[in-house]
Amino acid sequence: MENFRQFVVFLLAAVLLGTLSVVFALTWVLHWRGGLAWDLGLLEFNWHPVLSIIGFILINGLAVIIYRLPWTWNVSKPLMKYIHAGLNIAAFVLIVISLVAVFDFHNSKSIPNMYSLHSWIGLAAVIMYALQIVLGLCTFLLPFTPTYIKAFYMSIHVFAGLFIFGMAIAAAEMGITEKLIFTLRSGSNITLSYSRSPPEAILVNTLGVFILVFGGCILWIATRPEWKRPPEHINKIIGNEEGSTLNETNVSAETNMERVPEGTARMRYLNLEEACQRSTF
Amino acid sequence: MENFRQFVVFLLAAVLLGTLSVVFALTWVLHWRGGLAWDLGLLEFNWHPVLSIIGFILINGLAVIIYRLPWTWNVSKPLMKYIHAGLNIAAFVLIVISLVAVFDFHNSKSIPNMYSLHSWIGLAAVIMYALQIVLGLCTFLLPFTPTYIKAFYMSIHVFAGLFIFGMAIAAAEMGITEKLIFTLRSGSNITLSYSRSPPEAILVNTLGVFILVFGGCILWIATRPEWKRPPEHINKIIGNEEGSTLNETNVSAETNMERVPEGTARMRYLNLEEACQRSTF
Repeated sequence: MENFRQFVVFLLAAVLLGTLSVVFALTWVLHWRGGLAWDLGLLEFNWHPVLSIIGFILINGLAVIIYRLPWTWNVSKPLMKYIHAGLNIAAFVLIVISLVAVFDFHNSKSIPNMYSLHSWIGLAAVIMYALQIVLGLCTFLLPFTPTYIKAFYMSIHVFAGLFIFGMAIAAAEMGITEKLIFTLRSGSNITLSYSRSPPEAILVNTLGVFILVFGGCILWIATRPEWKRPPEHINKIIGNEEGSTLNETNVSAETNMERVPEGTARMRYLNLEEACQRSTF
Repeated sequence: MENFRQFVVFLLAAVLLGTLSVVFALTWVLHWRGGLAWDLGLLEFNWHPVLSIIGFILINGLAVIIYRLPWTWNVSKPLMKYIHAGLNIAAFVLIVISLVAVFDFHNSKSIPNMYSLHSWIGLAAVIMYALQIVLGLCTFLLPFTPTYIKAFYMSIHVFAGLFIFGMAIAAAEMGITEKLIFTLRSGSNITLSYSRSPPEAILVNTLGVFILVFGGCILWIATRPEWKRPPEHINKIIGNEEGSTLNETNVSAETNMERVPEGTARMRYLNLEEACQRSTF
């Protein structure tokens, strides 16, 4: 892999920032917002930021770059697809629970649902995420989907994945903004209002920055052409002939292409691989 | 250009959504927020969303895709660079004025500056934008910058441009959220509170959606490999030999590459062009 050290730096930064985001979100709700419970009240609401950040930011972000990890390049593509799909489905389940928490809280307190820009963009992102998962499963995991559909849909799937991830980040930033304004109002104790930057505001603003920079690391990793998973046939050739890890291996698609047996089915497969390579930005 | 009609559809959608965003922002401040003035008060604050959306969203977004417009592919690359830089500098000036408006307002009302996540991420985006413009000018417009620096910096410049654009969108969505919560508080008239979705809230939420979808169109256009501006030498060849517009022209880099005279300086130039082609995602 070209620039392997730079890759590791960005990956470690992403893992650190993603983990810190979850830790900060937990600190927020456990230390300042009364903790977690399933009581139809504010403590149930607290599951919303925690599960959204774990699911829609951290796991979704890691699922985006799962194919980039060079340590997985010896793992078969179908298995990697299952892992990618599995991570996204797990994230989706957490997001749905986080939505139930906020709807429960609103309904029990007679607060209208879906009035804020955060809720509009957040729900749109969740619906698009569901669609993305269903279409992804149908297109890339059903064995009878024609290859030309896979090749056509690949660039849309990749762009949509990154865009939905970006929407999730924007929704998180808006959600943080909303929650801080609602909870840190100028009340009896003026020094605790949001505009006076109490410790809670500093911690949660920092959480918002971590989420943004985590997103930046994920998008940087996902969009470097030199960090793409090499086409499957190249992995197989290297796996068979050299049997080594791909770190630092300089794989030349053109050189290896000559060794691949020709044939219509094989060529279709290669076209799909090429679409994968082109489409991941 | 491949998929020319799809390109035009996305471009028209972007122009329409960008224009509507500015119209909605103006409607918001002129119809519901008392208008515009330079009075150190709320009317001066109103310049902030209007100028930020015109500068950081609309003009910045159009500057991102300026090289993608096939009607400009006969225009020389240096001139296109000046237009790209000029648009970004114009946008930056508008953003600075919009920042002065909000700092003026805060200072005159003794409201602390820079306490919200919106302000943190917004100001970070502005500082990065300034840096991006300065580094871009030094790298791509100074005649004595070595080609290898240009080639190295290109992928960073392109990623940073798109990321800053994304940060601007996130900051705008947070700013809209903040302003709606602050102005549509549950006061004497409960039906006008944000949670009751009065017309102002619907209009401004819709503005937020327009900004997001505008961003989606810009990012889609910017990241399609088939819509990249062909390398300069191919433009020249086509301009000299065919003298026609490039619409629907199927340009094959490999075929035309043979006609280019060889030489070290020329090869360096081609390497830079290749970096441009690779790096724009």
